[in-house]
Amino acid sequence: MELIAQYRSFGGWVKRYRHWSEILKCSMVFGIYLPPQAEHSNVPLLYWLSGLTCTDENFMQKAGAQRAASEHGIAIVCPDTSPRGCDLPDEDKDYDLGTGAGFYLNATQMPWAEHYKMYDYIKDELPRLLMEGFPLQDKSSISGHSMGGHGALVLGLSNPDQFESMSAFAPICCPSQCPWGIKAFSQYLGDDRNNWKKYDASTLIELTDKKLPLLIDQGMDDEFLTKQLKLDEFMERLKAVNYPVQVDRHDGYDHSYFFIASFIDKHISFHAKYLKTV
Amino acid sequence: MELIAQYRSFGGWVKRYRHWSEILKCSMVFGIYLPPQAEHSNVPLLYWLSGLTCTDENFMQKAGAQRAASEHGIAIVCPDTSPRGCDLPDEDKDYDLGTGAGFYLNATQMPWAEHYKMYDYIKDELPRLLMEGFPLQDKSSISGHSMGGHGALVLGLSNPDQFESMSAFAPICCPSQCPWGIKAFSQYLGDDRNNWKKYDASTLIELTDKKLPLLIDQGMDDEFLTKQLKLDEFMERLKAVNYPVQVDRHDGYDHSYFFIASFIDKHISFHAKYLKTV
Repeated sequence: MELIAQYRSFGGWVKRYRHWSEILKCSMVFGIYLPPQAEHSNVPLLYWLSGLTCTDENFMQKAGAQRAASEHGIAIVCPDTSPRGCDLPDEDKDYDLGTGAGFYLNATQMPWAEHYKMYDYIKDELPRLLMEGFPLQDKSSISGHSMGGHGALVLGLSNPDQFESMSAFAPICCPSQCPWGIKAFSQYLGDDRNNWKKYDASTLIELTDKKLPLLIDQGMDDEFLTKQLKLDEFMERLKAVNYPVQVDRHDGYDHSYFFIASFIDKHISFHAKYLKTV
Repeated sequence: MELIAQYRSFGGWVKRYRHWSEILKCSMVFGIYLPPQAEHSNVPLLYWLSGLTCTDENFMQKAGAQRAASEHGIAIVCPDTSPRGCDLPDEDKDYDLGTGAGFYLNATQMPWAEHYKMYDYIKDELPRLLMEGFPLQDKSSISGHSMGGHGALVLGLSNPDQFESMSAFAPICCPSQCPWGIKAFSQYLGDDRNNWKKYDASTLIELTDKKLPLLIDQGMDDEFLTKQLKLDEFMERLKAVNYPVQVDRHDGYDHSYFFIASFIDKHISFHAKYLKTV
């Protein structure tokens, strides 16, 4: 791991690292916020998964999460949203496929299959790297926005023993049923929809026994709500399996980081409740 | 004024407007945060002046100021840092002259003199426009960062009846004595240094009778501190005229928005004290 930048922030540090990923077979950058408490003890960790077109930097610069993370003594890691610079054909052509659009899954189709394994990267390689390199407790939660909200739900639902809680801002709830998800899943996973199920929160929800605490915030003026996010459809599935969830809808809020910043304190507090329990 | 974007934020609104500036003779964009209180009453206003290379957007997106502004019921306006698109020779050549580098002064030298009148724009035209267009009290304070910290000090010191208080993050305190300032003042104001004095906080400080409340925050790992900002030299001048000031120095903090975000709540609270007094 090579430290490429660091900034003092709310008594702690925002640090950016570059490392070689064995799983993704490319160089990756992530950002981590280490709260002041990390200077003298191990702290729990919140994974933040960002949305389409984002890098490791958007959340760190725009969400204003460091204030609450510093108060609660929680580290936050922001991985990138896809492999980069793999020289795949058309990897930079669309904003919703390839670079910046990894969808937190393991691709099985060429040309993506060799690099696009964001699911394994977030689930296995990054945690190992972080536990080795930083003063972290073996306790983590997961959150994200839009495509990253989808990622947080899928990772959380599939690995309820790895995370204490999960949350999402404006998540893509039913990727198998929306244009973004159908395009990405077709390309990354092929046309057999049976192979899509394990990356779709709305189908995963029926397969999980252990239920994690779950919080979702959604802006009601979000331009993507009806066509891409499909929260209502997801809520029906949650209800059908009695999955406990707190969903807060907010009039006038859109899909932007201004929306995330307005409610990030609530999410940090929510996760703190489960991360700080002894 | 044309509304070009709006985002709900902490119960209020971030709005961006484009308007024709009579003073600058070009089209200008500014951002304004209207707290929830502005929906039913007039609120006081904080001017935020940004630094080199910034637009109206950096502060709104990265400082995390809306939370405290919403709590205190204070509006924040973020003007741009210079005229733009005036087709002046070399206006886009350097990051520290021309576009993004207006230095909050009235240029007297060609080719700048026709457009570069940011001092009058901030002091006269923008306040008039804002008072007409928004539910604002006739009470305002001023703050800024780096070049914008210089601007806030100069505007505040020259117009103590127009503002209730002033503050700055890492301001260029003595522009006549640092490379950024010398380059800009020479080009905008000519070589006669007598004409520089009214735009240099460290000389202005001796000319003002009415003293405004003043707060300065400075990161001690700021790469520009010694060569460009010269806080110690400014402090000597302040001391010499018994100008009351609170200066807070912070080990490890740099010149970035991570520094600003870490201490913006304190600045909002500071100004609220003077803006909210009946």
